[in-house]
Amino acid sequence: MSKRRRQKKAPGLPPGALIYTGTHTNIKGHLHWISFDPDQLSENRTGDLSEIPSVPPSGVLWVNMDGIHDVERIEALGKKFDIHPLVLEDVLNIDHRPKAEEYESYLFFTLKMIDMNEQDEIDAEQVSIVLGKNYLVSFQEKPGDIFEPVRDRIRNKKGRVREYKADYLAYLLLDAVVDRYFVILERIALRMEILEDQLVKDTADDSDSLLEIQRLKAQFIELRKAIFPLREAVGYIERCGDDILDKSTLKYFRDLYDHTIQIIDQLEGNREMLSSLQDLYHAMQSNRMNNIMKVLTIMASIFIPLTFIAGIYGMNFDNMPELHLRYGYYVAWAAMIAITLGMLWYFRRKKWM
Amino acid sequence: MSKRRRQKKAPGLPPGALIYTGTHTNIKGHLHWISFDPDQLSENRTGDLSEIPSVPPSGVLWVNMDGIHDVERIEALGKKFDIHPLVLEDVLNIDHRPKAEEYESYLFFTLKMIDMNEQDEIDAEQVSIVLGKNYLVSFQEKPGDIFEPVRDRIRNKKGRVREYKADYLAYLLLDAVVDRYFVILERIALRMEILEDQLVKDTADDSDSLLEIQRLKAQFIELRKAIFPLREAVGYIERCGDDILDKSTLKYFRDLYDHTIQIIDQLEGNREMLSSLQDLYHAMQSNRMNNIMKVLTIMASIFIPLTFIAGIYGMNFDNMPELHLRYGYYVAWAAMIAITLGMLWYFRRKKWM
Amino acid sequence: MSKRRRQKKAPGLPPGALIYTGTHTNIKGHLHWISFDPDQLSENRTGDLSEIPSVPPSGVLWVNMDGIHDVERIEALGKKFDIHPLVLEDVLNIDHRPKAEEYESYLFFTLKMIDMNEQDEIDAEQVSIVLGKNYLVSFQEKPGDIFEPVRDRIRNKKGRVREYKADYLAYLLLDAVVDRYFVILERIALRMEILEDQLVKDTADDSDSLLEIQRLKAQFIELRKAIFPLREAVGYIERCGDDILDKSTLKYFRDLYDHTIQIIDQLEGNREMLSSLQDLYHAMQSNRMNNIMKVLTIMASIFIPLTFIAGIYGMNFDNMPELHLRYGYYVAWAAMIAITLGMLWYFRRKKWM
Amino acid sequence: MSKRRRQKKAPGLPPGALIYTGTHTNIKGHLHWISFDPDQLSENRTGDLSEIPSVPPSGVLWVNMDGIHDVERIEALGKKFDIHPLVLEDVLNIDHRPKAEEYESYLFFTLKMIDMNEQDEIDAEQVSIVLGKNYLVSFQEKPGDIFEPVRDRIRNKKGRVREYKADYLAYLLLDAVVDRYFVILERIALRMEILEDQLVKDTADDSDSLLEIQRLKAQFIELRKAIFPLREAVGYIERCGDDILDKSTLKYFRDLYDHTIQIIDQLEGNREMLSSLQDLYHAMQSNRMNNIMKVLTIMASIFIPLTFIAGIYGMNFDNMPELHLRYGYYVAWAAMIAITLGMLWYFRRKKWM
Amino acid sequence: MSKRRRQKKAPGLPPGALIYTGTHTNIKGHLHWISFDPDQLSENRTGDLSEIPSVPPSGVLWVNMDGIHDVERIEALGKKFDIHPLVLEDVLNIDHRPKAEEYESYLFFTLKMIDMNEQDEIDAEQVSIVLGKNYLVSFQEKPGDIFEPVRDRIRNKKGRVREYKADYLAYLLLDAVVDRYFVILERIALRMEILEDQLVKDTADDSDSLLEIQRLKAQFIELRKAIFPLREAVGYIERCGDDILDKSTLKYFRDLYDHTIQIIDQLEGNREMLSSLQDLYHAMQSNRMNNIMKVLTIMASIFIPLTFIAGIYGMNFDNMPELHLRYGYYVAWAAMIAITLGMLWYFRRKKWM
Repeated sequence: MSKRRRQKKAPGLPPGALIYTGTHTNIKGHLHWISFDPDQLSENRTGDLSEIPSVPPSGVLWVNMDGIHDVERIEALGKKFDIHPLVLEDVLNIDHRPKAEEYESYLFFTLKMIDMNEQDEIDAEQVSIVLGKNYLVSFQEKPGDIFEPVRDRIRNKKGRVREYKADYLAYLLLDAVVDRYFVILERIALRMEILEDQLVKDTADDSDSLLEIQRLKAQFIELRKAIFPLREAVGYIERCGDDILDKSTLKYFRDLYDHTIQIIDQLEGNREMLSSLQDLYHAMQSNRMNNIMKVLTIMASIFIPLTFIAGIYGMNFDNMPELHLRYGYYVAWAAMIAITLGMLWYFRRKKWM
Repeated sequence: MSKRRRQKKAPGLPPGALIYTGTHTNIKGHLHWISFDPDQLSENRTGDLSEIPSVPPSGVLWVNMDGIHDVERIEALGKKFDIHPLVLEDVLNIDHRPKAEEYESYLFFTLKMIDMNEQDEIDAEQVSIVLGKNYLVSFQEKPGDIFEPVRDRIRNKKGRVREYKADYLAYLLLDAVVDRYFVILERIALRMEILEDQLVKDTADDSDSLLEIQRLKAQFIELRKAIFPLREAVGYIERCGDDILDKSTLKYFRDLYDHTIQIIDQLEGNREMLSSLQDLYHAMQSNRMNNIMKVLTIMASIFIPLTFIAGIYGMNFDNMPELHLRYGYYVAWAAMIAITLGMLWYFRRKKWM
Repeated sequence: MSKRRRQKKAPGLPPGALIYTGTHTNIKGHLHWISFDPDQLSENRTGDLSEIPSVPPSGVLWVNMDGIHDVERIEALGKKFDIHPLVLEDVLNIDHRPKAEEYESYLFFTLKMIDMNEQDEIDAEQVSIVLGKNYLVSFQEKPGDIFEPVRDRIRNKKGRVREYKADYLAYLLLDAVVDRYFVILERIALRMEILEDQLVKDTADDSDSLLEIQRLKAQFIELRKAIFPLREAVGYIERCGDDILDKSTLKYFRDLYDHTIQIIDQLEGNREMLSSLQDLYHAMQSNRMNNIMKVLTIMASIFIPLTFIAGIYGMNFDNMPELHLRYGYYVAWAAMIAITLGMLWYFRRKKWM
Repeated sequence: MSKRRRQKKAPGLPPGALIYTGTHTNIKGHLHWISFDPDQLSENRTGDLSEIPSVPPSGVLWVNMDGIHDVERIEALGKKFDIHPLVLEDVLNIDHRPKAEEYESYLFFTLKMIDMNEQDEIDAEQVSIVLGKNYLVSFQEKPGDIFEPVRDRIRNKKGRVREYKADYLAYLLLDAVVDRYFVILERIALRMEILEDQLVKDTADDSDSLLEIQRLKAQFIELRKAIFPLREAVGYIERCGDDILDKSTLKYFRDLYDHTIQIIDQLEGNREMLSSLQDLYHAMQSNRMNNIMKVLTIMASIFIPLTFIAGIYGMNFDNMPELHLRYGYYVAWAAMIAITLGMLWYFRRKKWM
Repeated sequence: MSKRRRQKKAPGLPPGALIYTGTHTNIKGHLHWISFDPDQLSENRTGDLSEIPSVPPSGVLWVNMDGIHDVERIEALGKKFDIHPLVLEDVLNIDHRPKAEEYESYLFFTLKMIDMNEQDEIDAEQVSIVLGKNYLVSFQEKPGDIFEPVRDRIRNKKGRVREYKADYLAYLLLDAVVDRYFVILERIALRMEILEDQLVKDTADDSDSLLEIQRLKAQFIELRKAIFPLREAVGYIERCGDDILDKSTLKYFRDLYDHTIQIIDQLEGNREMLSSLQDLYHAMQSNRMNNIMKVLTIMASIFIPLTFIAGIYGMNFDNMPELHLRYGYYVAWAAMIAITLGMLWYFRRKKWM
């Protein structure tokens, strides 16, 4: 539950008020655009909105904005592409759940990009896409290299991206974000394998395992919030179908939909696995408790009667005939050894030893 | 489960019988109206129903009633705006679940406004809205400032409220109530972070944590009852669509619907988190138990055999040759130290120390 | 699970065979009829079926039967009003789940009337209603006063009942039964509050709490079986709509539907609350166990080493120099006190004291 | 999990291959037919397929086959009534889930008949019905008397069976099977009552209760597998409606559908009850553990300090002034009694005694 | 969780990039084709793609590819049969969930073939089928004999396969894979029976049972991922219906659908059974703990008081009159025996012995 963001928008604010609710406010925002058709390509990493070329009649213009805390520029960009204030509000509200929504002249899509740092902490960033005819505007909270391979493919004319429309570009961007989930889930699965191994071999520190389980649970809750609504959103696009998407692109979105379902399957499988690990942890803990109690019981059951016998013959009564027997002491030892052996036999029969 | 309200309506009462079922009966009810169009505005905080102006042909009349225990005035107000007795019954029945219902000439909406006091206790108040053509009547159980920012915006012509119709005003009021939920959930999340911190660092008092968990659970149950039906109700309005709402207002209600879903997501995430904290609590408790048992077992296992040896040589047999050995005492000590070291080695190997 | 009724109908019996499956067989059955229109009213508490007047062309005839074990009279009554044998079978099968079913000339409705006696035991009675054009036949297992307020309202022309049709009367009867559920749930909520209080303050007897939890669970199971199908049944009537019901009555049934949903909400909330109380009970029990173990561990850990030291100097070796020291005894005491203090410090640091 | 049947059909066998998968292979199969219309009746218990009369143009021919391991006769019977091989495969595959399926000229229905023997073991047998125009073929794994009452009613012209068509006969057979479920559930409920009683009064042997719970769970799993798909299957027939069923028969199937839902309700109620009993069992076990620990703690806490005091004055230091006091011994006793009383007071205050 | 495969496809790769994600890369791929119609048959196990005959105008060509790591040959095969790159990507992505998808000229189906080795480890292999008009291409990760019986039936003209079309062949292949599931589930059920037996008789090693439970859970998770989507996929084919399938084949696919549902039923039943076994395990563990504690408590409660008495008369006070009584020692013994008997009586009454 670390890194919880605070909701900054005060209740009672007018709707459509543009306020960035995230924490990446000291990041220098970058504006990058690239305009291409099968034959030509021009691009620029500029901070100046006015340099963005106009939407080409054919081909695609893709404007990407890194750092969305600069509300005024977002607003200017919104005005330039005629984006509804409620959409911009959603772009800035980084707690928004993933969704797709069709507007008159464009499709809006927002989802989470998940990263995991060295300390296995999840870092969620909101990515939003406005897909219009022949243009695409994308927003990221902070600069990242996830879209760079797509740009490379555009520059180098790899694949079909240069021939296809903006909707195919949108698919490529979404696919890049969704593919990242597989990597995250794989890392989580690996952590769970390690955890299981430690539990089975009983080599883990007790509270470390416990905290790792707790942490994984919290991360699953966060991942679910990011991934579950995604299915609905991608399905929404697929259903919208012909209105927005080219027929040839549709099957790519269907593929994307398959991927989101596969991610959900894996996530749910991992969740069940975790709950099974938790059961294992508890059972192991109970086993340990049983073992501790067995040692105590064995020790106490053997030595308490012996000590009692020793106590008997430590009494100071004047008249204790056994004390004066020649071999009394040895008989006492024999009795004590017999008791010990009897106890050991009993515990072994009970399989406590 | 504190502050449970008693259902006062006796079974067998005729339907439509107006009885206030809440506890805020010693509150002085206030009646406030405001009438506006893009150009003009008049308002009054009056106790007199007769002073309410008639519904304007254009523009909006908003009548707000604080304190609904005064059944007769509610009835008079209902008569004035031609509100069905069953609707008024719902207004007064503060245990009613949130719902929206379309009547012939108006839309009825009831929901819960949630507040949290200094002691982190939840205080739910019923808010009802009757939205007609060019008028809106709202009911609150007790005076509150949650609608004041909306009034300010009306007075100061901030935003679009003066240009839009009564349906937009209804949206603003509902949005104000819904936005409050985010604040409550944020506070609950903060309490859970503190609780988790205490559990992880094991600094909390055992029964305090337990009662906090219990309290959070009860609050989640209460919040669910307030929030879950809300989705359905807002969705109902959205589906009614054109009949009641202006087309331009519709997308605001869609936005409101998104917000209710986001709240439900957060609530469910918090609930899962709480159940995970509860697991953590139990595991911590078991760990503690294990530790207690370990200390007992170690102490008993080391000292019981030693005491036995001491007991042996405390016996008073006439014939105990060891007692008369020159270094018998020191040998006994050596044996006892050897046993102790053996035990310590054993426990360390078992990782109990 | 007290008072479980035995299913008396043997398997293999022909369908439509009329057999009363309940336990209220030694009750004297009562037959009561009331016939009214806005202007006139006649009624009689008779045992004689032949005295029942014919169905009035306008106005309403309501026949109520208390005690349904008298199968022959049920059959005669069924014949008089032309009720299908399968319907009569359902009337007598007191284990039948609540349902509504439309027949050609009437609507059949059966549900459970729940009562709670002084010992907080639930007593479920089956109530069935046959609603035809201008007549209504109701069946109860045993005489009860739940319909008396409705009769009073008919007699005294209170409310709308005299002006409306038989469908409104049906609504009044169902509403009376449903309203009773709120009272039951309120009493259960109260018992749960008391239970929670006892658990939190740890004043309850352990097995009493346990049995109360167990009892509440069993009652929730029984209530669910009575209440859940009710929603479906009331919804069925509402959907049937115009065919059976007057348009003006429809909104009352919609209100009744709202009430059943509210009851389900409350029931589910209570169930969750109970499961949370059960968790509390278990956690409290574990806490107690921890505390018991702490006391044992502290006592044993302090006194076992001391006893060991005492044992050492109780040995009878000839050569034990410490025994002959002048202050040997006092030094031994000092050592024992030091050990005790060390132990106390250790336990306090571990927060076990 | 006793009596698990082995799936005998090897994977890779061609579809439609007729192989009996059950265990009742040493039962002599019986073939019985009865042909009737309102006026006439002829029947025969024969082993000879060729003696079966042809399907009457009006009236009903009912052929019942006990013992389905004789695959060749099944095949011959199938050929005679033109039954599809896939249907016959389902008849023989006794692990098939209950289902109804419409074929061109007949309706196929398969379900489980459940019995419970003296040792409370469940015995499931597959019953299949092929319902054609004017004929009905039924298959049972082993001879049973469950259909005998139906035959008696046919012979004695009891009820409507002689006047109605084959579909009503099918209803009677299904109803006979379904009614048996109520008896089974009643017996299970009785066992659970006994179990609860033993748990509450703590008179049961620990592992007996545990195994009974385990057994009930396994039986619920088996019952669910038999009963849940039944609802769907009966609902399927009901929906098929007019095509297969006479209009007058339809309401009997609707009644049957009600019964299956009622059985599911009871089954689910019983399952919840069982899970509640399991909770009770665990809580009782914890209580017992607490009580055991209390006894241990009380005994140890009282006697360990006393033994320590006795140990002190058993030491052999030369210089121990108390030993030489005149009333030293009595003072020691007094101290020990004081400690005992203090401990008792402490434990009583803690409510451990 | 052993044998988890690593996802090899890097995020950001272009869609349709053909990369095999499985581990069977050192297997020599085999290509086998068989072409038949009711009268003729030719087949060849070749490595050469060019030798594959062209699709016959009537009859069926079945090409089977074992070993899909050889991406280039897969691509060539795809080109030959005009298979979409996204389909080939799915063929190679062995983590793909089972699905069916209709393309313009063929139907694509992918599912998991499950095997269980001697060590009861699950081995899942991806099988994909492309079903076109008069041809069928199947892909397996590694050579296996599961399709051999089908080939034999083709060669030997057993059953209907030679007369029917490619869709019937597809059914046969799918049926072979699905039938294998029954075998796996049967083996798992057998393992669970053994486990239950060991638990009930308490003969199992504690951690072995625990690990077996853990392993079964993991296998259920894996099986669910393989089996649940299958229902949807087979249902999809069934719904597509006439477009792809011959009418006579349709009912075979309906049968296949029934089988998948039956497998899901069995899987869910097994899962519930496992969870019930887990409960049993925990209860048994608690029972054992209780028994251990009982032994400890009985031993300690009996001997600690006795040792105390012995300690008393081991004290060295000058003035202890009892010590000098003639029968003091015997009286002490009598007291100790009385205490022992009292304790035994107490524990027996508590049923601890």
